Amino acid sequence: MTIMPEALTQALSARFGDRFSRTEALRAQHGQGESYHPSAPPDAVVFAETTEEVSEIVRLCAAERVPVIAFGAGTSLEGHLSAVRGGVSVDLSRMNAILRVSAEDLDCTVQAGVTREQLNTWLRDQGLFFPIDPGANATLGGMAATRASGTNAVRYGTMRENVLSLTVVLPDGRIIRTGGRARKSSAGYDLTRLFVGSEGTLGIITEVTLRLYGLPETISAALCAFPSIDQAIGTAIAVVQLGIPVARMEFMDPGLIAAVNAHSGLSLPTTDTLAFEFHGGPESVREQVAQVQALAQDNGGHDFSWASTPEERNRLWKARHNAFYAIVSRRQNARGWSSDVCVPVSALSECIRHTRHLLAGCSVPAVILGHVGDGNYHVVFAVDPHHQGELDEVAAVNKQMVLKAIALGGTCTGEHGIGTGKIAYLRAEHGDAVDLMATIKQAIDPLGIMNPGKMLPLS
Amino acid sequence: MTIMPEALTQALSARFGDRFSRTEALRAQHGQGESYHPSAPPDAVVFAETTEEVSEIVRLCAAERVPVIAFGAGTSLEGHLSAVRGGVSVDLSRMNAILRVSAEDLDCTVQAGVTREQLNTWLRDQGLFFPIDPGANATLGGMAATRASGTNAVRYGTMRENVLSLTVVLPDGRIIRTGGRARKSSAGYDLTRLFVGSEGTLGIITEVTLRLYGLPETISAALCAFPSIDQAIGTAIAVVQLGIPVARMEFMDPGLIAAVNAHSGLSLPTTDTLAFEFHGGPESVREQVAQVQALAQDNGGHDFSWASTPEERNRLWKARHNAFYAIVSRRQNARGWSSDVCVPVSALSECIRHTRHLLAGCSVPAVILGHVGDGNYHVVFAVDPHHQGELDEVAAVNKQMVLKAIALGGTCTGEHGIGTGKIAYLRAEHGDAVDLMATIKQAIDPLGIMNPGKMLPLS
Repeated sequence: MTIMPEALTQALSARFGDRFSRTEALRAQHGQGESYHPSAPPDAVVFAETTEEVSEIVRLCAAERVPVIAFGAGTSLEGHLSAVRGGVSVDLSRMNAILRVSAEDLDCTVQAGVTREQLNTWLRDQGLFFPIDPGANATLGGMAATRASGTNAVRYGTMRENVLSLTVVLPDGRIIRTGGRARKSSAGYDLTRLFVGSEGTLGIITEVTLRLYGLPETISAALCAFPSIDQAIGTAIAVVQLGIPVARMEFMDPGLIAAVNAHSGLSLPTTDTLAFEFHGGPESVREQVAQVQALAQDNGGHDFSWASTPEERNRLWKARHNAFYAIVSRRQNARGWSSDVCVPVSALSECIRHTRHLLAGCSVPAVILGHVGDGNYHVVFAVDPHHQGELDEVAAVNKQMVLKAIALGGTCTGEHGIGTGKIAYLRAEHGDAVDLMATIKQAIDPLGIMNPGKMLPLS
Repeated sequence: MTIMPEALTQALSARFGDRFSRTEALRAQHGQGESYHPSAPPDAVVFAETTEEVSEIVRLCAAERVPVIAFGAGTSLEGHLSAVRGGVSVDLSRMNAILRVSAEDLDCTVQAGVTREQLNTWLRDQGLFFPIDPGANATLGGMAATRASGTNAVRYGTMRENVLSLTVVLPDGRIIRTGGRARKSSAGYDLTRLFVGSEGTLGIITEVTLRLYGLPETISAALCAFPSIDQAIGTAIAVVQLGIPVARMEFMDPGLIAAVNAHSGLSLPTTDTLAFEFHGGPESVREQVAQVQALAQDNGGHDFSWASTPEERNRLWKARHNAFYAIVSRRQNARGWSSDVCVPVSALSECIRHTRHLLAGCSVPAVILGHVGDGNYHVVFAVDPHHQGELDEVAAVNKQMVLKAIALGGTCTGEHGIGTGKIAYLRAEHGDAVDLMATIKQAIDPLGIMNPGKMLPLS
């Protein structure tokens, strides 16, 4: 545990005034995300307002070898915010300016603290949108740092595909810009992709340039109920394999549907369900719908129930995005433990069957939901964080689920990141490539001050 | 210049027998690509047949600090193959096995020496294809190493988006696998994207796992002639901005059309032309065609001339892919100097106008062609490589074109890479981020033996 030197405290306090804080409540809030991981509070919090200020903070911390942890909306699910060695939390939420939008080039540049909902509200009048939507209203800096995705990834890709350029403060305070606004480039190492998904361990992202998309001419959304999970998943796999360009294809199990009904005041049939959304010109959408309906029918799916107005559609997806909260709120004093894996689609049925078997023997309430078009699904447990037996039980189930996904050629996390929660599985998945990751970390952050203890084990 | 130690020569010769060679012709061939860059032959060539053999060669060279340069099909355009410090060329062309194809998961794994045409011939019967198509019949290892793209990138992305996983031999001989087969992952640094585009400077790619696509149900291709380049480019920009999912949208200027007609026995009207291809279900294609035709008409485009049979279509794209050879063959003893830049589409008209102005004052024959849907275009000069005045003249034009593209927010190379040819522009484009690239290079290849003198200046 680093002890915060008095000189650093004084320097930050003098420089940032009441934007520097050591109050207990603020520190506790900045030391945890939304999941079961207990808070490990930083020693102090600074609210930065510019890239240059972030650079100043990092320089001051580097001089004293004090850890620096970036904070956006606090929606991490895998312990990314735990100050396991103390240090300074750099809160970027006030860096929430939308700096530039180009409707001509379908791109924009935002400060890291802009949230996805803020951006889409801003874009709507211009007929544009940014598709990446993790359930939470996360910041775009945080989404870049964890390589986030969400329901639209099956059509539009993840943050990996949709970040064009970044402004980054390096561990010694230097400021660089990675990538550029051209849609493609073969000029140099792909530093953008190196920082996307680096979880704050190589530097702090302060600005993000993103691809945008025109709002589709036609949008249709529908739910389809299936007699069994296998038939629902079988339909999803067939849609992917035929290359039908669905915009969303979400699986929800009966437990999730019940929770969502209660939380969002809906009355969906509590059965295994796929939720679809179709984007395109009217003819293209008609074609997609007909193809998907035929596949669903082949797999025993019931009639499509359409969300025909924009309001109905928004209500549906809002309910889906609140699934995590819906599940956790079903049990008093519970915290959510949301694990996610992703496998090649051909292995999806086997992997989910295995997970269901594990859950059948687990005493903690849990549901399965997922972005099945990508082979990605989540299990959300509503766990009592004060009950060690429950935590141990969930950890054991999680371990078996993750190792099964890796054995099937998949990954230990499709979109939540490693944080502290999945460090144990990185080598099981990547083998000796982890040593190369450590070499890169050591070269870029030789003092080890950037979000220590996340992704790679502490040395 | 490294002198190849006798002990290394003997060790490689003893181990690889007649797959190790020092003949002058073979060395000269391995020291250059297809462009104007003069050959800088390696000291020796080894034909590797397995990843483990590549690892052995690298270990032997590392022990003697002798450079190692990977060689695939030899189609580089920016001097990537020049052995500027001598060393050993590792020829991967015999590593041409297609190791695995999954129609279910739409992916495959191939050895690095498999060419794109070989792969697509193999896939055709399974109803699959791999879309990335630089003009040349390059190897997939080489295409990954230069972050190649081509005519389909506007719809399907580049190698950046289509490589899932790599097997790489590191500079000390260790073998790692990056990434995985899951469509998305948030597990660890994105090593796959770090090696894609690294031009052999961080390791040697020996196997590549790629995304595949189902052959579209409907394919249509058409040419459209325009009264002026501005109107052709204006149409392309409008198509992009409306998000019409064209599969190909290629610009060809009158000089290129004339060369292609002569080279490929066609009789296209010699005017500024866009070539389109549309992929999808029949209704989706009908919708795309109608939208694009309307936009072309608004911009003064003539009627679409359709390539209606697969044979006509193949002939058209084959001619387009041979454009480089077509231009160079128009002038005796000429070599091609193909430069490429890429800018945000909103800047495309201005950039191309500037380039045309430069070419109007240039004595060396040159044409403009490009993947304009991405904002990417090429100028191909047919230059006399023995005429220093011509080389200087082209270099000056190239410099102005590149600096203009960078000033417009673009990149000095959209798809050809840096090699030796564009080292001078990397810092102009990326600023201090180049120092971070050098830090990464130093950390991964501390001896500096991997393709030295490419991308980053020699230290």
